[in-house]
Amino acid sequence: MSRVTPLSGFPELLPSQRIVELAVIDQLRSTFELHGFASVETRAAEPLDQLLRKGEIDKEVYVLRRLQAGNDPGDSGLGLHYDLTVPLARYVLEHAGKLDFPFRRYQIQKAWRGERPQEGRYREFTQADIDVIGRDHLAFHHDVEVARVMAEAFSALPFLPPLRLQINNRKLIEGFYRGIGAPDIGAVMRIIDKVDKVSTDVAAKMLADDAGLAPDQVERCLALAAIRSPDRSFADQVLALGVRHPMLDEGIAELITVVEGCARFASARVVVEADLRIARGLDYYTGTVFETRMTGLDQVGSVCSGGRYDQLASDGRTTYPGVGISLGITRMLVPLLSRGWLDGSRSVPSVVLVALPDDASRPACDAIADALRARGIAAEVSESAAKYGRQIRYAERRGIPFVWFPMGRENGDEVKDIRHGDQVPADPATWRPPTIDLRPQVIARTGEDDQ
Amino acid sequence: MSRVTPLSGFPELLPSQRIVELAVIDQLRSTFELHGFASVETRAAEPLDQLLRKGEIDKEVYVLRRLQAGNDPGDSGLGLHYDLTVPLARYVLEHAGKLDFPFRRYQIQKAWRGERPQEGRYREFTQADIDVIGRDHLAFHHDVEVARVMAEAFSALPFLPPLRLQINNRKLIEGFYRGIGAPDIGAVMRIIDKVDKVSTDVAAKMLADDAGLAPDQVERCLALAAIRSPDRSFADQVLALGVRHPMLDEGIAELITVVEGCARFASARVVVEADLRIARGLDYYTGTVFETRMTGLDQVGSVCSGGRYDQLASDGRTTYPGVGISLGITRMLVPLLSRGWLDGSRSVPSVVLVALPDDASRPACDAIADALRARGIAAEVSESAAKYGRQIRYAERRGIPFVWFPMGRENGDEVKDIRHGDQVPADPATWRPPTIDLRPQVIARTGEDDQ
Repeated sequence: MSRVTPLSGFPELLPSQRIVELAVIDQLRSTFELHGFASVETRAAEPLDQLLRKGEIDKEVYVLRRLQAGNDPGDSGLGLHYDLTVPLARYVLEHAGKLDFPFRRYQIQKAWRGERPQEGRYREFTQADIDVIGRDHLAFHHDVEVARVMAEAFSALPFLPPLRLQINNRKLIEGFYRGIGAPDIGAVMRIIDKVDKVSTDVAAKMLADDAGLAPDQVERCLALAAIRSPDRSFADQVLALGVRHPMLDEGIAELITVVEGCARFASARVVVEADLRIARGLDYYTGTVFETRMTGLDQVGSVCSGGRYDQLASDGRTTYPGVGISLGITRMLVPLLSRGWLDGSRSVPSVVLVALPDDASRPACDAIADALRARGIAAEVSESAAKYGRQIRYAERRGIPFVWFPMGRENGDEVKDIRHGDQVPADPATWRPPTIDLRPQVIARTGEDDQ
Repeated sequence: MSRVTPLSGFPELLPSQRIVELAVIDQLRSTFELHGFASVETRAAEPLDQLLRKGEIDKEVYVLRRLQAGNDPGDSGLGLHYDLTVPLARYVLEHAGKLDFPFRRYQIQKAWRGERPQEGRYREFTQADIDVIGRDHLAFHHDVEVARVMAEAFSALPFLPPLRLQINNRKLIEGFYRGIGAPDIGAVMRIIDKVDKVSTDVAAKMLADDAGLAPDQVERCLALAAIRSPDRSFADQVLALGVRHPMLDEGIAELITVVEGCARFASARVVVEADLRIARGLDYYTGTVFETRMTGLDQVGSVCSGGRYDQLASDGRTTYPGVGISLGITRMLVPLLSRGWLDGSRSVPSVVLVALPDDASRPACDAIADALRARGIAAEVSESAAKYGRQIRYAERRGIPFVWFPMGRENGDEVKDIRHGDQVPADPATWRPPTIDLRPQVIARTGEDDQ
């Protein structure tokens, strides 16, 4: 076991970085649960034929094989899930008789893709998804709900860089393209989806050559894609382009409702806006679509995406429509952690290190630590009865803020804040650290520390 | 997607069952963190040559292959980890320069084995491991520590069936076997490890035939394996067998220390005892060994096992000894959940369903729900403005205990406990549910509900 090499695309966090990830996951879970979303985990493996229904993702699936499968071919044809949506569709069909609809679920779990690793792309990554699934019908107000919940979750994570939740509506853009008489709606949508990756000139040429649009149609499609607003004013800009279609009207009304429904959670840190360039390449969205970008980290791409899909799953008789949004936790955090922009305030949960005067005092020191733990204060006892200076350095290296000195029964104990040097008398039955020290904090550093 | 079949060995929980699993995970995490253990997650994939170092497990590994790997063989030779110990050893070696030793970590994560599925054996399962890893040296008091922490965690999970934490020491039994002059220590240990699966007669015959023991040696080995006690009295019983060896003395002293160190957490529900039959089949343990059984579920086997391994990892220059204990969360919970012995008190986190008088009131009802959420009370707003009777049944089906009725601004709101029918005036800025209703509870049923 002497040769150890990191695996590209399989990021691993150090303990202080993991504290950041846990803080994010805990906060997401808290927000999701306050809104009544139930936790679900699905198995990591799904039948390959289910995973490969979306052709474009073929090459990215990890196939499973038992090392000695000769006597049992039962697991052939399994692959690791590459998102949490395909498994959700299967879970809903498999357990439909035991679920209540509309079914609100959150799922925070790993997924795997055999992609070429690059910033923002990993082979193993953690996602946090919320979805609302209906049976046969799903009211539109759930589109507003998932956007509100995710915007609220972002607001509760103050250490993240400013985020931009960009919302559009497939009915709006499809109705617009129909209104101008575009011959191939799908082709236009795929090109518009790439408009922020290529220049306007290139997009215009693609719209003419590949989507068969006339020059004035190209111009209006690009004008539509340039519209964005944090409120309903996008609607007037769309109508000013002079295109009319019933599906366009429906899309505009839905988009206004979603954007205005999120206004309460919008801030300088969490911008919520209609952005008519957002199309989402995947073809199963049928209404609202979401993307989210981190300010200053454009190269990472969208870290939180989703939308409405009227046909999430179907067993032939019953159709299950859904709306959901998926946050890429690894995709969002690893770039911030690897730059040192975020880190935990310490590498261990401990608030207190109980110093050990001598080996015979270990039971007494354990009792002090137990008294602190019983009151919710994480504590550990020194490894050995080394000189106090060495014990203090042990705490310093880990970022443990307090060292507890047992002084024997008559003298009473003392506790020292080793950051400031203050040392005061203390009783393990009553002493409390400042609330901010009780748990490790997430420390956000400025971009100047960029490595 | 119309054909959906469960995958044998890949258990999946319904939302109310997942509430039980989350409650267990949250409590474990809380206990581990109070003792200063840091959270770590390792990647799911490890190089096959690392995974196959223990020959006996060969056939159980799931190998990964990218579906279209032709242009990039980089991921060939990867498999899914089958426990959390091999990955920990690799993590420690890979990140040793950035870790502080002794390194206390907990890891709650899934693992995979291509085993034949049966009760207590799964192909995908969640483990909760705690380990303390030293550099070159690891003090013995950490053996006591990991046992104490796990016993304390069990004590904090009152809905589990009574548990029996069985502790032994490899030095004790190896010293004993050396003391009686056994020619093949390893063979004796492997047979004793199976002594509770075969009859005493069969074990005696195996000890004679396969381990080459004389009749009086067989007798003393079986007498040793029959000893158990919740305190240090096992030591006198061992010494009464008339065997002497320095390694035996060392093992007895260590085992006394561990058993007495856990006494504070022992109870009728969590029995902690020296059990000299426990040997652990795997060969890397060098001192303390642990197993744990659930009363009334012997067929499930040990749900929590571990021990001391003086050579967890080595890079040739530095050796990393460790001691740890691993709780099989899936192995423990799925038998209890599938029998209906444990379940969540509801299928959603929501405490309150805000009833919807009419569609126009949705913003007002959202505001009521937001006011409750801001005070930590999980709430959802009714799906539709159906008759109140139907809205109440919606809450009943999910187990939501309270329905909130907005009565318009002048009349004030009312909230109804739909379990008892009490309906009282309430203000979303001040109303609190009983603390026990704030989060879903774990409900333990008697064995009579066995299915």
